[in-house]
Amino acid sequence: MNMQLYTELCQRFGIRYPIFLAGMAGGPSTAELVAAVSDAGGLGTLGAAYMEPAAIRQSIQDIRKLTDKPFAVNLFASAATKASDNLDRIGEVQHELNRMRETLGIPQAGCGSADWFEKQFTVLLEEKVPVISTAFGILPEPLMRQAKAANLLVVTMVTTVNEALMAEQAGCDAIVAQGSDAGGHRGTFDLTEHPMGANIGTFSLVPQIVDQVKIPVIAAGGVMDGRGLVASLVLGAQGVQMGTRFLTALESGAHEVYKQALLESTEESTVITLAFSGRPARGIRNAFIKRWDATGLEPLPFPVQNTVTRDIRNAANRQNNPDYMSLWAGQGTRRLTSGQRAKAIVYETIQEALSLCGSSEITDPHE
Amino acid sequence: MNMQLYTELCQRFGIRYPIFLAGMAGGPSTAELVAAVSDAGGLGTLGAAYMEPAAIRQSIQDIRKLTDKPFAVNLFASAATKASDNLDRIGEVQHELNRMRETLGIPQAGCGSADWFEKQFTVLLEEKVPVISTAFGILPEPLMRQAKAANLLVVTMVTTVNEALMAEQAGCDAIVAQGSDAGGHRGTFDLTEHPMGANIGTFSLVPQIVDQVKIPVIAAGGVMDGRGLVASLVLGAQGVQMGTRFLTALESGAHEVYKQALLESTEESTVITLAFSGRPARGIRNAFIKRWDATGLEPLPFPVQNTVTRDIRNAANRQNNPDYMSLWAGQGTRRLTSGQRAKAIVYETIQEALSLCGSSEITDPHE
Repeated sequence: MNMQLYTELCQRFGIRYPIFLAGMAGGPSTAELVAAVSDAGGLGTLGAAYMEPAAIRQSIQDIRKLTDKPFAVNLFASAATKASDNLDRIGEVQHELNRMRETLGIPQAGCGSADWFEKQFTVLLEEKVPVISTAFGILPEPLMRQAKAANLLVVTMVTTVNEALMAEQAGCDAIVAQGSDAGGHRGTFDLTEHPMGANIGTFSLVPQIVDQVKIPVIAAGGVMDGRGLVASLVLGAQGVQMGTRFLTALESGAHEVYKQALLESTEESTVITLAFSGRPARGIRNAFIKRWDATGLEPLPFPVQNTVTRDIRNAANRQNNPDYMSLWAGQGTRRLTSGQRAKAIVYETIQEALSLCGSSEITDPHE
Repeated sequence: MNMQLYTELCQRFGIRYPIFLAGMAGGPSTAELVAAVSDAGGLGTLGAAYMEPAAIRQSIQDIRKLTDKPFAVNLFASAATKASDNLDRIGEVQHELNRMRETLGIPQAGCGSADWFEKQFTVLLEEKVPVISTAFGILPEPLMRQAKAANLLVVTMVTTVNEALMAEQAGCDAIVAQGSDAGGHRGTFDLTEHPMGANIGTFSLVPQIVDQVKIPVIAAGGVMDGRGLVASLVLGAQGVQMGTRFLTALESGAHEVYKQALLESTEESTVITLAFSGRPARGIRNAFIKRWDATGLEPLPFPVQNTVTRDIRNAANRQNNPDYMSLWAGQGTRRLTSGQRAKAIVYETIQEALSLCGSSEITDPHE
C-alpha cells in the first residue's frame, strides 16, 4: 500500500519511527523509559508537569547520559487558578477526603498549590531540550517566541478541530490529536463548553483534524500496536503517540500494583473523572473514584484538587494499594503486554506495521 | 498493502463491497435508500425497529421492487419493559414535556407503548429477508433457531468484547462493533453497568473484538469515507457499517432541517442522551436535550420515554423545527456531503479505499 512509515514528521523531528511516547506525568516516565523509546528510534517524552524545576533538569541530564537521540519534555500549559475560583470550598473537600485518609491511616494534610510553569519552561530553554510538548493549551506567546528563537520544536495536544487550528496558528511544529480513547488527562484547552473534556473518538477526530491543518498530526488514544499505527496513517496522521502501552514496560516507573491493575483491566474498566485533579482524565474506576462520586461534591478547580488529593495517592503508593492511586489508562488495555522492554514494544509495533504495509523486516530508511 | 476490499464477509453476505448501511429507525432509511445501497454493491438495511409489522412488510416489498440484491432489516431485540419499572412516574414526566408541547402549540398526548417485536420478527421470517440485524441484544434463542432454519443471516450490534463473545456463542453470522463515535442509539445490551452505554472508541473497540472472535467483525462509529473503511480493515474488521454519512444522501428520509443541522454540525456538536427514548443515544445537542436536562428528571425506561416524547418529535417534524427532533449523528459530521446519491457515496468510498490500497479504479472481483 501507499503508507510510508518514515513520514515528514520523522524528518522534521529527526526520528526513525513515527512513535511518540506520551508525556505521562507523575512517575511512569522515568529517564530510562524516555531514553529507551528515543534510542529505539521513536521520540521519548518526559512527563514533567508535576516535577520541580530542579528535578526536571536532573532528569534531562539523566536522559542525555542514556541516549544522544532527540526527546521531548511535556508540561501542562494551563492558566493558573483564577482568584474567582471557589477555593473556600477546600475545607468541605478536605472533610470528605479525610474519610479516605482514615482508611489509609494517614494524617490530614495541609494545602498548597505551587505554580512552577514559568520556572519549568526556563529549565527546558536553558537545557535546550529538542522538543517541548504541552497539554491543556498552547505555550503562551512570549514563551513560544523564546522556544522558536532557540530552535526548539513545539508540539501541542488538542482534542478538537478548533484547538488544532489555534495550535497551528500559534506556530506549533506538530499537533497531537487526542481522541477520547486515550488514558490520562483530556487535553481540552477550555472546559467551559465541555466540562468532562471534548471527547471525540480517535477514529473520528484524526481525519477531521488532518483535513483542516497543514502541520503534521500525531494520532493519540487507543494506539496499542502496529495495527493502530497503520490505521492512524491511513486516517491521515503522520505518526502516533502511545502512552498506555508503555506503562507496563520494564523501564516504566508505574507502581507494580498499577501495572497489575492495567494488565487485569478491559475496555470496560475506565471512566473519565474529575476526582483526582479537578481536570477530566481517563482511568480505571477504583475505590477512590467511587467514594469521591458518592460524596456528590464538585471537585476543586485544577490544580488544587490534585494538590489536596496528593497525600492520599502517595500513601496508596507506599501501601501498594491500587484502590487509592490514579490508575490512568486508555481503552485498549487488552493489548497490553507484561515484562517487555520499551525497545521491544517499539520494534514489535514497527514490525507489525511493516508487515501490514507489505514489508516484513525493520529496515533503516537512511541505510 | 495486504488489504483486500472483497473480504470473507462479502462472500458470506453475497455483496460486492464491505459496506453495510446502518439500521436507522424512525424515518431516514427509506426503501429507496436501502435499495440504493444494496444496488451499489453494499448491504442496505431497513431500520424497522419503530415500524408496525404491516408497514415493514410493505417496505420489504418496495425494496424488492427496486433491487434484487440482498438487504437487511434491523430490529431492537430488547427485553420488554419490566413490571418493576417505575411507570407511575409517567405523570411527572408528562408534566415537564407539556412545557415543550406548549412551545410547539400541540395538545397533551396519552401514553401507550406497543411491543411489536415478535410480530415484526414473524414478518421478516415470512418475507425471508436475507439478513436480520438487531440492536440492544441478540435474537432470543427460539427466534435465532427459526432464523437459522430459514437460512437467514443474523447480525448483532455489540459495544464490548463480552457482548461480542455472547453474539458469537449464540450463532450470529457477523457482529457490528459499535464504537462510541457512532450516532444514534448505543447498542449496549444491559445498561446496569453502563447507564449511558459502554462507550469505547471505535479505534479501541474493533481490534480488541477482532482478537477474541472468529466471526467477521464490521466496524461502526465514525466511518465516513475510504480512509475509515481501510483503517477499519487495518484494525482487523472485514467491513464497515455507515449510518451518518448516508443521512444526507438524496434518498435518505431524514427531514430537510435535520439534514441541514447535520451539515452545519461539527465533531463538538453531539452528546449521548437518554432524553428522547430512555436509552442512551448520540445526537446533536438541541433545545429538547437542553430543556430535558434542565428538568433534572430521570427519563422513563425504554421504550416508554420514546412513546411519551413521540408527539413532540412528530410536531417538530411538521413544523420544520429541528430544536425538538432527535438529531442522531456520529462524531464525523465534518465529512458529510450534500446532494449525493447513495450510490455515489458507496462508489466514492470504495474509490478512495482502493486508492489507499494502491489501486485506482473500481473493479469487480468477480470479473
